[in-house]
Amino acid sequence: MTEKLVVVGGDAAGMSAASQARRLKSPDELEIVALERGNFTSYSACGIPYYVSGTVDDFDELIVRTPAEFRDNQSIDARVRHEVVEIDTDAQRVTVRDLEAERTYEESFDQLLLATGSQPIRPPLPGIDAEGVYGVQTLDDGLEIEKALEEKPKRAVVVGGGYIGLEMAEALVLKGLHVALVELAPHPMSTLDPDMGEWISRGVRDLGIELHTSEPVTAVETKNGRVDAVITENHSLPADLVILGLGARPNVELAEKADIPIGPSGGIVVNPTMRTPVDGVWAAGDCAEKFHRVSLARVTVALGTHANKEGRVAGINIGGSYATFPGVVGTAVSKVCDLEVGRTGLKEAECDEVGLSYVTASADSTTRAGYFPGAADIRLKLIAERRSGRLLGAQIVGKEGAAKRIDVLATALWNEMTVVEILHLDLSYAPPFSPVWDPVLIAARKAWDEVQQETPPSIQ
Amino acid sequence: MTEKLVVVGGDAAGMSAASQARRLKSPDELEIVALERGNFTSYSACGIPYYVSGTVDDFDELIVRTPAEFRDNQSIDARVRHEVVEIDTDAQRVTVRDLEAERTYEESFDQLLLATGSQPIRPPLPGIDAEGVYGVQTLDDGLEIEKALEEKPKRAVVVGGGYIGLEMAEALVLKGLHVALVELAPHPMSTLDPDMGEWISRGVRDLGIELHTSEPVTAVETKNGRVDAVITENHSLPADLVILGLGARPNVELAEKADIPIGPSGGIVVNPTMRTPVDGVWAAGDCAEKFHRVSLARVTVALGTHANKEGRVAGINIGGSYATFPGVVGTAVSKVCDLEVGRTGLKEAECDEVGLSYVTASADSTTRAGYFPGAADIRLKLIAERRSGRLLGAQIVGKEGAAKRIDVLATALWNEMTVVEILHLDLSYAPPFSPVWDPVLIAARKAWDEVQQETPPSIQ
Repeated sequence: MTEKLVVVGGDAAGMSAASQARRLKSPDELEIVALERGNFTSYSACGIPYYVSGTVDDFDELIVRTPAEFRDNQSIDARVRHEVVEIDTDAQRVTVRDLEAERTYEESFDQLLLATGSQPIRPPLPGIDAEGVYGVQTLDDGLEIEKALEEKPKRAVVVGGGYIGLEMAEALVLKGLHVALVELAPHPMSTLDPDMGEWISRGVRDLGIELHTSEPVTAVETKNGRVDAVITENHSLPADLVILGLGARPNVELAEKADIPIGPSGGIVVNPTMRTPVDGVWAAGDCAEKFHRVSLARVTVALGTHANKEGRVAGINIGGSYATFPGVVGTAVSKVCDLEVGRTGLKEAECDEVGLSYVTASADSTTRAGYFPGAADIRLKLIAERRSGRLLGAQIVGKEGAAKRIDVLATALWNEMTVVEILHLDLSYAPPFSPVWDPVLIAARKAWDEVQQETPPSIQ
Repeated sequence: MTEKLVVVGGDAAGMSAASQARRLKSPDELEIVALERGNFTSYSACGIPYYVSGTVDDFDELIVRTPAEFRDNQSIDARVRHEVVEIDTDAQRVTVRDLEAERTYEESFDQLLLATGSQPIRPPLPGIDAEGVYGVQTLDDGLEIEKALEEKPKRAVVVGGGYIGLEMAEALVLKGLHVALVELAPHPMSTLDPDMGEWISRGVRDLGIELHTSEPVTAVETKNGRVDAVITENHSLPADLVILGLGARPNVELAEKADIPIGPSGGIVVNPTMRTPVDGVWAAGDCAEKFHRVSLARVTVALGTHANKEGRVAGINIGGSYATFPGVVGTAVSKVCDLEVGRTGLKEAECDEVGLSYVTASADSTTRAGYFPGAADIRLKLIAERRSGRLLGAQIVGKEGAAKRIDVLATALWNEMTVVEILHLDLSYAPPFSPVWDPVLIAARKAWDEVQQETPPSIQ
């Protein structure tokens, strides 16, 4: 008998899962239907800022695979503009709204995968839903912003200086707009500690962006239903266009209504195989909780790389084989103009929250041997557990060649290495790639000095 | 009473040790004499090819610290052009030849550190010692080659296509010479497997280098005592200048004569604190054996980064504190024109030698998201232990941004990760830095597929 898998959400997690399940089971064994409410399947949402800026000029390049390709090559019935509006886990069926044909129908399932993604956070401010206020999450969002740019807006305000906020701010500067960025924290990119954030503030101002930090937004002023200005505690910032860069929260309304458990993080509860506590129901990607290997907490993180891995794991299990997703360590990287930023693990405030006691060390170095042409500045900060010296987090700010080094620290963190172990790592060295002491090793050496500084209490 | 440390060799290992020991002990507690037979202390030998090519134009930039700086800032009595010619470990004294004053004197010690480095391998071929044949090891070698270039030689032959050989070949091409490279193996950079080496051969030829592979050199032809041609099995290659790029072997003659144990690898035997079996005698850097964490063998590796770390460890122990050097995993990186090459762990032939059974997987990918400007080719090969899937080695060939990714695999290797663990690593992702599946993860996924391919034998 043919089983049936219904996938809700046709981007990274959903389509990875569908593809993996198909690798393991033929169409005779498993029918796969993927339902996507937007216009596109399997795309790179992270590429949107670069499409808006013109850095990437071909929209199609952001699309990994079209519904036709899924249908023709993998016998996956991918339907765009089909929105799942209700889930009945007892009856094992979903109610689907065909947005094109404007009709509603039901689809039964044996296995259900929720890959509903996330949506930009929209604080409940007056005017926030006005025309001209955009979140950046889906390719459809990207197209809408592109359309808005055709009207030749002059001034944009970006609310929130996270990764997407900064990338969009840069994109709009490149498109010739005057851009103001409003950030509640003392510096943009508040996933870094404030001491590293100073570099970001400087970099953002150097880009010609009008930066307002430590400043809450209080309202969006409108004129004829369209955005006209962003009002902060101290300023009124004229705006033809507003971009929300306040992060994202999981799309879990459907799951919630269907009594599929939501964890305290706001994501759907899953075990390491990506199964929810409800029989036959799986979740993967932005909408699913992840285990954070350093804080040991359940968290949500909206990131394509996790979505792909989790989708793959879900698909393997749905396909009858076995795989587990072992969690995340909080790695992220971004490029704002020529400034590269990377982070992994916990920042100081996060350690405090979790109750981890720590020391910190920062090192200024260069990306190549100091004498080698193109050697660029890099600043690296490590956070190590007090006494044990175990790495808890790392942050990098620098120029060309700086940020990707965060991967070494993400790998070290994954393996619960101490800074004294890290300082002996056999990292590659040649003058075009690194000083003889790699910046990572220098920072580890300094952190180890800090760990040792403290005189242990006498043991009685 | 003041103790006395004598350091033999004034480069990375020796001077790192001297500096660390000084940090821990004042001149009243520890007198430090460093004896260097060459003209320079504490320099970047790895920078020589880039100085020869003109990429680095200021010679002084290669010198980290001069004898005067050691004397004035750290009270370390660093003497250049002073060659230790004999060691008496019973009497605890060394015999020193002052090459400038042409006199010989004795220097007593309480602690002795051997940091005598390595020297280019010179096969016993007819003519190999002719004028115009250069090894590349010390700054003095660099200066000699520079002087030779002032004579406007037209044709150079590089014997051996290892890191130094390739870097020097490129340097000489940049200086306008016609360069032929002779390599015994099927491809240059034979620290990689042949399948990866193909890329190197292509890259080397693209540089305009005349490449002869699988070809042993049989003699160096001379004319009036000067090199005139390099004779191989099949060719006679005219040469005004010959560079030896056959690797290096530890300088252990002094130690050998003094009955300080030499291991089968050819390096001085040390324990993890860098102490030799002889009381009060330490060794660090190229001349000392290293523990290879993957093959579990003792090896020698001539590399500044190990020398610095080992020197630091030796210095800390000599200074009365405690540190250990935990070994190497065989990481190396190089840049030949726009071609980047990285490796870590064992290559296939090395696994065979050690008796490790393995599977391999290669992945072709890009350094950035495929659609992002500047996305460059990268090929990554992983070697994983059969059955267990434990990573044994990794090799990378690619363009800008490719090679330094080897550090992630070196860190994974250090931690004995399996490829299925690696494929879930939380590596940083954003379109300017990586495809959504980082090339490292893609290769790990493929390697894991290979590990699983094999049906296990039934257990009875």
